[in-house]
Amino acid sequence: MPGIVECVPNVSEGRRADAVDRMAAAIRAVDGVRLLDRTSDTDHNRSVFTFAGPAGAVEAAAHALVGAALREIDLRTHQGEHPRLGAVDVVPFVPLAGATMEECVAIAHRFGRAVAERHDLPVYFYAKAAPRPERVRLPDIRKPQFEGLAEVIGTTHVPDAGPARVHPTAGAMVTGARPPLIAFNIELDTADVKLAKRIAKEIRESSGGLPAVQALGFELTDPPRAQVSMNLLDTSQTSLARVWHEVETRAAAEGVRILRGELIGLMPLDAALQAAASGLRLDGLPRDRIVEAHFIE
Amino acid sequence: MPGIVECVPNVSEGRRADAVDRMAAAIRAVDGVRLLDRTSDTDHNRSVFTFAGPAGAVEAAAHALVGAALREIDLRTHQGEHPRLGAVDVVPFVPLAGATMEECVAIAHRFGRAVAERHDLPVYFYAKAAPRPERVRLPDIRKPQFEGLAEVIGTTHVPDAGPARVHPTAGAMVTGARPPLIAFNIELDTADVKLAKRIAKEIRESSGGLPAVQALGFELTDPPRAQVSMNLLDTSQTSLARVWHEVETRAAAEGVRILRGELIGLMPLDAALQAAASGLRLDGLPRDRIVEAHFIE
Repeated sequence: MPGIVECVPNVSEGRRADAVDRMAAAIRAVDGVRLLDRTSDTDHNRSVFTFAGPAGAVEAAAHALVGAALREIDLRTHQGEHPRLGAVDVVPFVPLAGATMEECVAIAHRFGRAVAERHDLPVYFYAKAAPRPERVRLPDIRKPQFEGLAEVIGTTHVPDAGPARVHPTAGAMVTGARPPLIAFNIELDTADVKLAKRIAKEIRESSGGLPAVQALGFELTDPPRAQVSMNLLDTSQTSLARVWHEVETRAAAEGVRILRGELIGLMPLDAALQAAASGLRLDGLPRDRIVEAHFIE
Repeated sequence: MPGIVECVPNVSEGRRADAVDRMAAAIRAVDGVRLLDRTSDTDHNRSVFTFAGPAGAVEAAAHALVGAALREIDLRTHQGEHPRLGAVDVVPFVPLAGATMEECVAIAHRFGRAVAERHDLPVYFYAKAAPRPERVRLPDIRKPQFEGLAEVIGTTHVPDAGPARVHPTAGAMVTGARPPLIAFNIELDTADVKLAKRIAKEIRESSGGLPAVQALGFELTDPPRAQVSMNLLDTSQTSLARVWHEVETRAAAEGVRILRGELIGLMPLDAALQAAASGLRLDGLPRDRIVEAHFIE
């Protein structure tokens, strides 16, 4: 079982469909890579690509995307609601079946250094690839934004690779390695959005809840229903089953049932097997117990 | 996502390890095929191989196995407890991710005809590949056994391919197509084996229970525990989650909890995803929502 690596780059262009098309085409042109999703937001003026494949092919596709994005995007004229530091704003590498976090950290470092060299672009390493604590969190790195970076690039924001000089049109780039993210919602059999908001607050990490869980309570309309909307940032710390149990218990205490779960986008195989194992009360369900997992390549 | 086909041939040799090794080597020698399991039973004097891969490679490996088995096995001197008709007793083809039952039926027919021609061997098509009702069930076909086949091969047991004449050393072969089989046990938090036996009887198809479910109640020792041991023959008819629910409900009615589930051997990806979807109350979890499933080939 060779490793599959996922890459989820965010670029600062979400309005010109033809430009985004050309970036997507650059990714798709790399043999062995599959572009699994692309989402553009016009308010944010930002696009997110999700692609995956063997490590080498994914790294090559990330380079192809950087090349295309630097041709298409001029940050001097870019406007959008989302904070950003560069044309290629952030490029996370994610280990999936058969790949390790260590490999993804190595890919991020090699990729970042090569981009810095090739495009004369300042590069920061974040998350698991961070060289020091103040590089771990993306918001900390991104705080000065493109417009303010020149002022601090020689002091608090010395790049981890490349020149200590903002690229005129492309700003800077952040790259790194992180676990797969799962976007998962739970719909409650009630219209009481206060309950969803309370549960969300109790389970999210930022208010002392479960590690690696982000959660918000929302009101769905037609029919009116309360929803707990979550990002699971590391299912080795907090699994889908754990989150399910915590939401179910809190809802049940108020006499409310769970109506259904909802997966947004894709999920990694290991998280699905973890959920299956939990439901069937197995002592784990490793990939090699799944026939087809022997044919992932 | 190209299709993965599984093949689970049973051969009439379970005592001479070197002979079984040579059969396993014949399978492994085919490029693209993975031998996932081999189990030999000396009392039954019988071995089961589980291998999988792309359809063409699996068909080639099945031919390689037949060649090796016919060199190794002489049924005139074979003794064992398990009923059998031939040296290569039965060769089921099983559709996994991306493959269809229709493809597996076509493979079984083509494979069976080629074996009949190449080795002058009578061949029967069973399960989903059966040409008529009395060929569907393996025990019906196997009833006369090797020793009694000559007597009926011209009347009730006219082969579906090949000569109506028993092969002197290899007997006859049965091949066909069937859904994947999952061997799954549920351990109850009680030593009351009567409860396990009662539940097994209530849920198995043969006594009017769930379709495509075989079940028996067993007593485990050290510590003493009751176990419901099952084969799920078609999870599109009865899923793991359904079986779990039925066992759990019946045990709970007697105040008994389920301790744990146990998967024997491997399971197909779709069954695992079905179990995950059930636990997370998703409206299904198709393969294309799993990142790595896009790289099964």
